[in-house]
Amino acid sequence: MPTKKILLPEDDIPKQWYNIAPDLPKPMPPFIDPSTKEPGVGIVPKIFPKAIIGQELSKERWIDIPDEVREVYKIWRPSPLYRATHLEKLLKTPAKIYYKYEGVSPAGSHKTNTAVPQVYYNMKEGVTRVSTETGAGQWGSALSFAAMTFGVKATVYMVRASYDQKPYRKMMIHAFGGEIFASPSKQTEAGRKILAEDPDNKGSLGIAISEAVEDALVSEVKTNYTIGSVFNHVLLHQTVIGLETQKQMAMVDDYPDVIYGCIGGGSSYSGLIWPFYHDKVTKKAPKETKLIATEATACPKVTKGQYIYDHGDTARITPLVPMHTLGHDFIPAPIHAGGLRYHGIAPTISILTQENQMTTEAYNQLDVFDAAKLFIQSEGIIPAPEPSHAIKGAIDEALRCKETGEEKTILFLLCGHGHFDMQAYEDYHMGKLQPYEYPTEKVAESMDKLHTLYPWLDKVNKQYISCEPL
Amino acid sequence: MPTKKILLPEDDIPKQWYNIAPDLPKPMPPFIDPSTKEPGVGIVPKIFPKAIIGQELSKERWIDIPDEVREVYKIWRPSPLYRATHLEKLLKTPAKIYYKYEGVSPAGSHKTNTAVPQVYYNMKEGVTRVSTETGAGQWGSALSFAAMTFGVKATVYMVRASYDQKPYRKMMIHAFGGEIFASPSKQTEAGRKILAEDPDNKGSLGIAISEAVEDALVSEVKTNYTIGSVFNHVLLHQTVIGLETQKQMAMVDDYPDVIYGCIGGGSSYSGLIWPFYHDKVTKKAPKETKLIATEATACPKVTKGQYIYDHGDTARITPLVPMHTLGHDFIPAPIHAGGLRYHGIAPTISILTQENQMTTEAYNQLDVFDAAKLFIQSEGIIPAPEPSHAIKGAIDEALRCKETGEEKTILFLLCGHGHFDMQAYEDYHMGKLQPYEYPTEKVAESMDKLHTLYPWLDKVNKQYISCEPL
Repeated sequence: MPTKKILLPEDDIPKQWYNIAPDLPKPMPPFIDPSTKEPGVGIVPKIFPKAIIGQELSKERWIDIPDEVREVYKIWRPSPLYRATHLEKLLKTPAKIYYKYEGVSPAGSHKTNTAVPQVYYNMKEGVTRVSTETGAGQWGSALSFAAMTFGVKATVYMVRASYDQKPYRKMMIHAFGGEIFASPSKQTEAGRKILAEDPDNKGSLGIAISEAVEDALVSEVKTNYTIGSVFNHVLLHQTVIGLETQKQMAMVDDYPDVIYGCIGGGSSYSGLIWPFYHDKVTKKAPKETKLIATEATACPKVTKGQYIYDHGDTARITPLVPMHTLGHDFIPAPIHAGGLRYHGIAPTISILTQENQMTTEAYNQLDVFDAAKLFIQSEGIIPAPEPSHAIKGAIDEALRCKETGEEKTILFLLCGHGHFDMQAYEDYHMGKLQPYEYPTEKVAESMDKLHTLYPWLDKVNKQYISCEPL
Repeated sequence: MPTKKILLPEDDIPKQWYNIAPDLPKPMPPFIDPSTKEPGVGIVPKIFPKAIIGQELSKERWIDIPDEVREVYKIWRPSPLYRATHLEKLLKTPAKIYYKYEGVSPAGSHKTNTAVPQVYYNMKEGVTRVSTETGAGQWGSALSFAAMTFGVKATVYMVRASYDQKPYRKMMIHAFGGEIFASPSKQTEAGRKILAEDPDNKGSLGIAISEAVEDALVSEVKTNYTIGSVFNHVLLHQTVIGLETQKQMAMVDDYPDVIYGCIGGGSSYSGLIWPFYHDKVTKKAPKETKLIATEATACPKVTKGQYIYDHGDTARITPLVPMHTLGHDFIPAPIHAGGLRYHGIAPTISILTQENQMTTEAYNQLDVFDAAKLFIQSEGIIPAPEPSHAIKGAIDEALRCKETGEEKTILFLLCGHGHFDMQAYEDYHMGKLQPYEYPTEKVAESMDKLHTLYPWLDKVNKQYISCEPL
């Protein structure tokens, strides 16, 4: 049997992150400030440290990782690359399947890769508290871990519905010394206003973002806001995943024909594929690698959404972001892959999609849990529901190889474990899961509303996204 | 900073387990059959496969690990040895602290090290189903994982109180394809009898053992019983822990001055220390290494119990075992370290204790969680409550070194993660934990009852344990 775990020594933790910005097939369109209808970043400079804003806008290809960050990374990095020997056997496929496993981090997912540098840069600029929102809790727990590490306080606004349903994530945030409020909360003006109108409001990511941002803006203690995905600097930090994977695949003299990952905001998948994309643009790639993202049919932003300017949050606090979106008023069905329920996507994912550098497939959660079950039965690791979408893609690909006899090399990202998602597996076990497909008509409705809200939207879309002459 | 994770390649997964039996300072006393008052193993041959019984009684020093078992071990073995760099810094100690981390296994603890070979040997002898009891659920989930791996069915009787309190473990057993019943259950004569008298009975490990053994004895399908600790063959399988650790310490040119671990039945700690004990008896040890086990003050079998013949279970189905015990009628306080609530201990731990080869310290859970908090704050990993007892021992030792200036090398076993124990941390966070100290008088009462039950007990104790002339 081949080596199962391909491991790197700590010296091989990357010393620089890779930034895709200078290598994009076309430049990233600017954010738009809806009040001026012109490029503008709105509140961004008030809630992020200078170093992070610098990275967000940087055109440098390689950005140094501070030694202090690499020292914390050592707790779990380099993460293992697994050969899915037992899964290959179960599927009887001629394909080789590899997965990069980020569930070994203290918070159990890739989110710590960016939480650590984000808190570090804040700490260096004298910030003593960071705020954020969290849905299912992966980001909130990763941020709390990172904050604890650098002696910074973390305040997390967790969507009330998840706060009640996923108590273990809340407890983990406490264990890491974080402060957590069910959102809407009485801590902020935004929260109090909503609770006054609806005391039983179950919250949403949009509301939680509003609370976390307000907290950072008004706090008397020096507080900044932090974000777990979508923004360029977050994706940048996640490239440690892909950079390590490249070295690991080289150790077994292999290179992927196809790379699967799941996309919520798009950070983990970008972290994996950017370095492979760099191989391609620098002609170092030994073969053509297909990049296939996976999303939930309950939240099909790339497969059914439009590439257009839209707000990153329901409450319209953020500037307009050029991205595939289902509309900022999108209300997700209660699928267990909480991390995939975001209405938009990282702008670079949209550019790569538009320029035919990658594609996206959508799966319903019943098929996804069927795939996760096969993975557990063979590989033993219980995956989170989010990366189980990538597992579904990889298994389908491996089964197609079985039909055709192709000996493809399939790589996918297992971005987190499912230890705090056991209720999802129990619901699956008990036959309680619904497939959920988001209807196309609903997207059209949201787009109509967006155009009614901003009648000038087509103009900026043409000018910055389609780059058509006005 | 030194290397944080000391990793071995898969080729270094041990090829043989180390058996302490031939190297014990005195031979292991036999089991006693209370019906004959003579040495005898009772029901043992009816519920275990021949290969396991062979290992249980073996005097061979090295026992080959089957290739099929090593192939499954590759999923998580060799497990990492960590240098506790961040904890050392937090404590400002001149000591070097290392921990071997077994939480990387699919079920999250060391239990899989023995579950895999146990199911393998059963499968080889045609057994198609295995039964067992579980308290907090670590053993039940490890066995379910192993059974899934070899296509064998697993039936787990989980103590009702834990079944209700720790739903995630039950769900994990389901996810691994295991069948689980809250004990007492209606599946067995023993369970039905108890439920008839007391329909709300919350169960105990003793009752669950009775059910799992009865299941194996009466089942029409070829079913065997499996056990997660105490027995020699279980401890033997766990020696992969210590054998790997020796290689890893050699990689950084170090050797422990003291080794901490926690003891429930004693299998994980034995797995770590046996190979170091072998170094000592073969004069290969470069220094004198202190072996210090840790237990809960709520269940102080070694520090307050007596070394005497007693049953392994409350229902008195097992033969009499020569061990430190609090009495088979012991009812544990509801401490969160469920794995440390067993009234007895592996007989070899008792021999090593009696022969002054090791000592044991007891800690209350408030002090234990204080130590766990320091560990989380620095190392990031959330430990299970059981190994947090070992963390407490290691931290105290490191703080003593700070006083004396000694640069000791401290090694401890982190036998599992605490992802399914978050309620314990939340209770600690909320100030709800009780320290619990088991009163010495209670032990005396249990011993009196035992002597009343078996008036001839002193005689066999003298003959086989103390080896005094009759």
